[in-house]
Amino acid sequence: MSDSAYAWFEREQQNRGIDVTQVKERLNALKIETPSWGYADQGTRFRTFKRADAARTVREKLEDAAAVHRFTGACPDVAIHIPWDHADDFGKLAADAKSLGIGIGAVNPNLFQDDEYMLGSVTNADPAVRARAVEHLLACVDIARATGSKALSLWFADGTNYPGQGDFRQRKAWMEESLRTMYAALDADMRMLIEYKFFEPGFYHTDLADWGMAYNLAQKLGPKAEVLVDTGHHPQGTNIEHIVAYLLDEGRLGGFHFNARKYADDDLIVGSANPYELFLIFAQIALAERDANPIVRRTAERIAYMIDQSHNIEAKIPAMIRSVMNVQTQYAKALLVDWNAVAEAQRAGDVLEAEAAVREAFEQNVTPLLQAVREEAGLPADPMAAYKQSGYAERIWNARSAAVAPL
Amino acid sequence: MSDSAYAWFEREQQNRGIDVTQVKERLNALKIETPSWGYADQGTRFRTFKRADAARTVREKLEDAAAVHRFTGACPDVAIHIPWDHADDFGKLAADAKSLGIGIGAVNPNLFQDDEYMLGSVTNADPAVRARAVEHLLACVDIARATGSKALSLWFADGTNYPGQGDFRQRKAWMEESLRTMYAALDADMRMLIEYKFFEPGFYHTDLADWGMAYNLAQKLGPKAEVLVDTGHHPQGTNIEHIVAYLLDEGRLGGFHFNARKYADDDLIVGSANPYELFLIFAQIALAERDANPIVRRTAERIAYMIDQSHNIEAKIPAMIRSVMNVQTQYAKALLVDWNAVAEAQRAGDVLEAEAAVREAFEQNVTPLLQAVREEAGLPADPMAAYKQSGYAERIWNARSAAVAPL
Amino acid sequence: MSDSAYAWFEREQQNRGIDVTQVKERLNALKIETPSWGYADQGTRFRTFKRADAARTVREKLEDAAAVHRFTGACPDVAIHIPWDHADDFGKLAADAKSLGIGIGAVNPNLFQDDEYMLGSVTNADPAVRARAVEHLLACVDIARATGSKALSLWFADGTNYPGQGDFRQRKAWMEESLRTMYAALDADMRMLIEYKFFEPGFYHTDLADWGMAYNLAQKLGPKAEVLVDTGHHPQGTNIEHIVAYLLDEGRLGGFHFNARKYADDDLIVGSANPYELFLIFAQIALAERDANPIVRRTAERIAYMIDQSHNIEAKIPAMIRSVMNVQTQYAKALLVDWNAVAEAQRAGDVLEAEAAVREAFEQNVTPLLQAVREEAGLPADPMAAYKQSGYAERIWNARSAAVAPL
Amino acid sequence: MSDSAYAWFEREQQNRGIDVTQVKERLNALKIETPSWGYADQGTRFRTFKRADAARTVREKLEDAAAVHRFTGACPDVAIHIPWDHADDFGKLAADAKSLGIGIGAVNPNLFQDDEYMLGSVTNADPAVRARAVEHLLACVDIARATGSKALSLWFADGTNYPGQGDFRQRKAWMEESLRTMYAALDADMRMLIEYKFFEPGFYHTDLADWGMAYNLAQKLGPKAEVLVDTGHHPQGTNIEHIVAYLLDEGRLGGFHFNARKYADDDLIVGSANPYELFLIFAQIALAERDANPIVRRTAERIAYMIDQSHNIEAKIPAMIRSVMNVQTQYAKALLVDWNAVAEAQRAGDVLEAEAAVREAFEQNVTPLLQAVREEAGLPADPMAAYKQSGYAERIWNARSAAVAPL
Repeated sequence: MSDSAYAWFEREQQNRGIDVTQVKERLNALKIETPSWGYADQGTRFRTFKRADAARTVREKLEDAAAVHRFTGACPDVAIHIPWDHADDFGKLAADAKSLGIGIGAVNPNLFQDDEYMLGSVTNADPAVRARAVEHLLACVDIARATGSKALSLWFADGTNYPGQGDFRQRKAWMEESLRTMYAALDADMRMLIEYKFFEPGFYHTDLADWGMAYNLAQKLGPKAEVLVDTGHHPQGTNIEHIVAYLLDEGRLGGFHFNARKYADDDLIVGSANPYELFLIFAQIALAERDANPIVRRTAERIAYMIDQSHNIEAKIPAMIRSVMNVQTQYAKALLVDWNAVAEAQRAGDVLEAEAAVREAFEQNVTPLLQAVREEAGLPADPMAAYKQSGYAERIWNARSAAVAPL
Repeated sequence: MSDSAYAWFEREQQNRGIDVTQVKERLNALKIETPSWGYADQGTRFRTFKRADAARTVREKLEDAAAVHRFTGACPDVAIHIPWDHADDFGKLAADAKSLGIGIGAVNPNLFQDDEYMLGSVTNADPAVRARAVEHLLACVDIARATGSKALSLWFADGTNYPGQGDFRQRKAWMEESLRTMYAALDADMRMLIEYKFFEPGFYHTDLADWGMAYNLAQKLGPKAEVLVDTGHHPQGTNIEHIVAYLLDEGRLGGFHFNARKYADDDLIVGSANPYELFLIFAQIALAERDANPIVRRTAERIAYMIDQSHNIEAKIPAMIRSVMNVQTQYAKALLVDWNAVAEAQRAGDVLEAEAAVREAFEQNVTPLLQAVREEAGLPADPMAAYKQSGYAERIWNARSAAVAPL
Repeated sequence: MSDSAYAWFEREQQNRGIDVTQVKERLNALKIETPSWGYADQGTRFRTFKRADAARTVREKLEDAAAVHRFTGACPDVAIHIPWDHADDFGKLAADAKSLGIGIGAVNPNLFQDDEYMLGSVTNADPAVRARAVEHLLACVDIARATGSKALSLWFADGTNYPGQGDFRQRKAWMEESLRTMYAALDADMRMLIEYKFFEPGFYHTDLADWGMAYNLAQKLGPKAEVLVDTGHHPQGTNIEHIVAYLLDEGRLGGFHFNARKYADDDLIVGSANPYELFLIFAQIALAERDANPIVRRTAERIAYMIDQSHNIEAKIPAMIRSVMNVQTQYAKALLVDWNAVAEAQRAGDVLEAEAAVREAFEQNVTPLLQAVREEAGLPADPMAAYKQSGYAERIWNARSAAVAPL
Repeated sequence: MSDSAYAWFEREQQNRGIDVTQVKERLNALKIETPSWGYADQGTRFRTFKRADAARTVREKLEDAAAVHRFTGACPDVAIHIPWDHADDFGKLAADAKSLGIGIGAVNPNLFQDDEYMLGSVTNADPAVRARAVEHLLACVDIARATGSKALSLWFADGTNYPGQGDFRQRKAWMEESLRTMYAALDADMRMLIEYKFFEPGFYHTDLADWGMAYNLAQKLGPKAEVLVDTGHHPQGTNIEHIVAYLLDEGRLGGFHFNARKYADDDLIVGSANPYELFLIFAQIALAERDANPIVRRTAERIAYMIDQSHNIEAKIPAMIRSVMNVQTQYAKALLVDWNAVAEAQRAGDVLEAEAAVREAFEQNVTPLLQAVREEAGLPADPMAAYKQSGYAERIWNARSAAVAPL
């Protein structure tokens, strides 16, 4: 596309009454954290296919995350998983990241890969296991402090596979007790993002099964606790944008784990399965960003956007760049909604016009807009093409194909 | 089955360490409200098939409800739907019911059958419609007072069919505002049961879509507001017994609308699609009834059990009797769980034993037990057989087949 | 949008290697049948809200269908439902339609609204009911002959609500037997479109529950029997475009009932819940239209596209126009897929490029294209705006608001 | 339970008109294959927890399978997975199994764990990969011949994650082509069981996604090809017993992979999530076993019952014993259905009686019956208790805890 493509787009939007300058500002402000584990090999329960170019060390993960930021300009932070990204000196890890041009994002405690967590971590019937789990949570708060991270992102694999296996209410009490201890250790400017999940790896129940359980827990803990919405963690048919709006309204929406799904928690590239759903989620956020209520507004502006996917068959860095572009595309479209037209149709009870006003924004082709925003920021107009031309892919393929992995 | 069947059952349970006397007491205490509308013709969107024996007037509905109570001894109250069960004098309605041997149960305001509610009732964008809806809610509080009912059962059809049709957060505020007004009008001993529903008749969003939204609203309103769980109002796969345990733990489980489903809100006879699910729900209740925490215990004991089904193709009174028997069956089984064995297996991390301990109770044949309980209470051992022999079915068929319906 | 918008679009697509002339031809060839019942009042099981402008007679339905064709140029035929659209003289009905500028499309036998069909029609355990059902099917063949219709569209509400209610295999035999009789009565140029449905109004089983059962039946009956895909009749998560491709490959895809759903068979405006899904369905069709195999190609070209929705809260004619435009939009996008790029990426095993090649087409804004196509055909560029300006809506509102409905 | 428990049970069933002798014969005839892989460590994508007592070699798997057969008397064959159970001499493997008292059941080719199968096996776009996959299929036919196995059980992980990634119809042709080659290599007395799966590991489409695709393929291949139903491979809400009845009616039901699920393909212990569903499946089989049509009858009698589960947190051998007992329990209940009562109620259109007749069988406690059947066959009345007392668990725990795994 050419300059004229953008000029035409801009005129078109101005005719629709859209303030394109403001749209560009918003798009520039959108930052999306990428996950360190998204650069390493991942798989299904059937197989983790090995790719020669997958990152094998924390250093390689940081390098790949930095590359994604270099080409997109939108991913200044990388989330880490502990102990996968263990470092003897986390201050040095943060310095390493900084030297690569990125920062450390959310710290994700891992409480599901030790054998002792087979029957649960913070909800395990064995008090010694619960104590160890809480200890790990506290260690992660220290790691956040050491790396300058301000967010602890909490996903628990805790759940059961069979009726009777666990006592729902007892486990609920243990969950609350554990998180209270962790909450007390948070610094004033840290926040705790509580994730929920419908099922898997628990196939009978999950201790934090839905937004209501995560929200209620956050309410009990205090203002530093917020809910994290993973777009793949809901039952089929769930209206996720409704939940997003609800949590925004209560000032408790802390962040997102972005990915796409058609069936279960498929962890595909965000926006690939149902782009309209992602657009509708961002439409609620865009609306909240304009809200009269400062709490709603500030909540929307502080949302931590994070990608959390499983790139089972894709080249990882291009998958990440594509993900970022998909998010930008749907946010851009959401910013093109003419909310006055929507509100007027709602007041008039004109269902068809209200729907048409929302969908009209989705039908816009925002490619010229995103290219213009990137170029104005000194970034490549097409991050994917730029990545492919950069030679980075070949370099890591060659370097990492070496028989012995670096330590 | 014979006396010896029960004798054998009792010995068997004693060997399992079950206090059969206590089980019987609990079974005797189980009361299930039947709905007036369950005695009238109901249908799908494709067709409401007409049955000659369906109740056509409030009086006939009361008579049928009384018949169900006569044969089961378990259904002393009948829920009413306003304005379907409108009476010029609700005190007289209650007296009529009393003379038939039953009382008036929950009052259900109907806010979905007037044309003005097409786009919502308490969440309608038109303030005049919202005002009328609130007025109806307040009128229903008066009706509860006049009939001696202590429960207002609230289901809202409010929702939207298309993105953009309504403003989620604005509607949320209107919902809360409307219910606050209603809450303020409740007597000290009344309670408000807030129902939620995943979808239908809203096919894009429902204003109270899940237990979390109903619970959060109840929390805001105050102690007289509780959550009502309709067993057919969840996404596929939802672990309903987990939600039940959660709400019991929070002291906010107000009641049930019982019915069965395989797909959507199918409103079939409770316990017919997946009996084990109903058992597992009752297992959580039975466990809560034994809890050390008095709030949990009292919440469990105060649960309002109500049937809410759509008998599209079945004879209505036998369908209701069958429903009551199904509920009794699963509650009886739940009372046979050896919780000590469950707890011990949980402590030991023995998943298979824990599951086996729960399932063992489900595998019991409780027919002799239920027959004994009924006979000891002076009721027919087999309510269905007794109903069939009573001649009631033939009487109403003949009487109601008359060309002109009574007013 | 202006001429320059289209000029820019055309250049853009030519750069992508798309033959725009051919795209326009295809778009011109797309014809979508509208259903007579979509112009009348429809509702949910809770309520059928009455609209003053709804069509009340067969004549009014034909007029409304003709209006939709006038503004869109894409809906030359109207499907009829028997007995809803009963006429004493069906030849005259066809002549009436012709005088309004439209023809009679598929004939839809109705076997679910008589009380005798409560427990099934062609699968009823009572041979007399089955005989009557078959008689109605044969009468509909005669009606097709009388009206010049070449398609019989068969949806059966047959199913059960409870285990044991019916014998699956016996009912399967009755279904086959009934349709064999009907098949034998078809003229050489008629076709029988067999619809399947996951559930509702049967809430335990549906006799033709999925495409496999409909397909197998069609295989047994012969070449005039084909499968009809209703986009709302599948379990959650179903990959409908896969089924479409499969049936195309077998030469058995007869037609579509278009509508949208988020939950169950919601019957919303097609393309409103998940536009990408509709695009992907059309992508399979567009691909089949280019296939080397003439059977696949001819099957794709003969598909009967039909709208089948329930306009519970919308103005019916605008809802229909919107539906037609949504279908045109997604078909247009599907025609913009660069299949060479897709095939090349598939050969190379480049998952990301293959996906990008498909999605790129979806991201195009096809509004200028569709406007150009319409204007070149002498139609209004914006059918909805033209309808609103035409005064038709006001005319029918006034005429039909009259207290007494015409006969 | 005591002898008197059985005596009471028998009298009770005779009063219901059940031929208990025949029921016992059927129960004795029920044989269930266990899978070699079910004795080894298995996990979710998050973690495969290691158990010291898991089988690590083919020999250990055979030993464990033999142990399960020893205690249950119902599992004479063990299914093998190639290459997981590779042997240099498969004749010797069969002899080893025989010496342990068991035989080799279905041979399961594995086409999903080599890196070259990342984008598919028999449907891979690369002809060299397809050729290698077919070669493996043919090798498995040879293995079947060498081990005396008569069944090849085919599950393909083939599918895609994104729209555009693969060409549905081309892949369909490749699938068919590959299986035709394999089919031609089958001996006259071998059969090919074709499994289907809704999703996973393909998260956009699965090449054999449902019973219809598997069935149609089997039809094309010939009489030695049949459909295998895995109880966890369907969309939510699917009426599996309907599919079972359908395939029985067409003479194409080859076998089952038994497991339980609440959400996706959870692979839990069969019968643990929804015991009633398993009962209803067996009810269809029991009904088919009595059918007038010899094809239906013979199909039912030849069903290959196989367990296919993932014991992520359970001790494997007890999990298998429990699974076998669950299957026996539900089959036993299914054999207690009074089909005359069901048929009579169906004829009379008495929905409630028909359902009651089916459910009455489910409500029976069949523990005394199963204990009697086992004791009469010289087996332990309670296989689980017998296993626990046998010391086998302790022996393998100690032996396999040794640091170095045997080769």
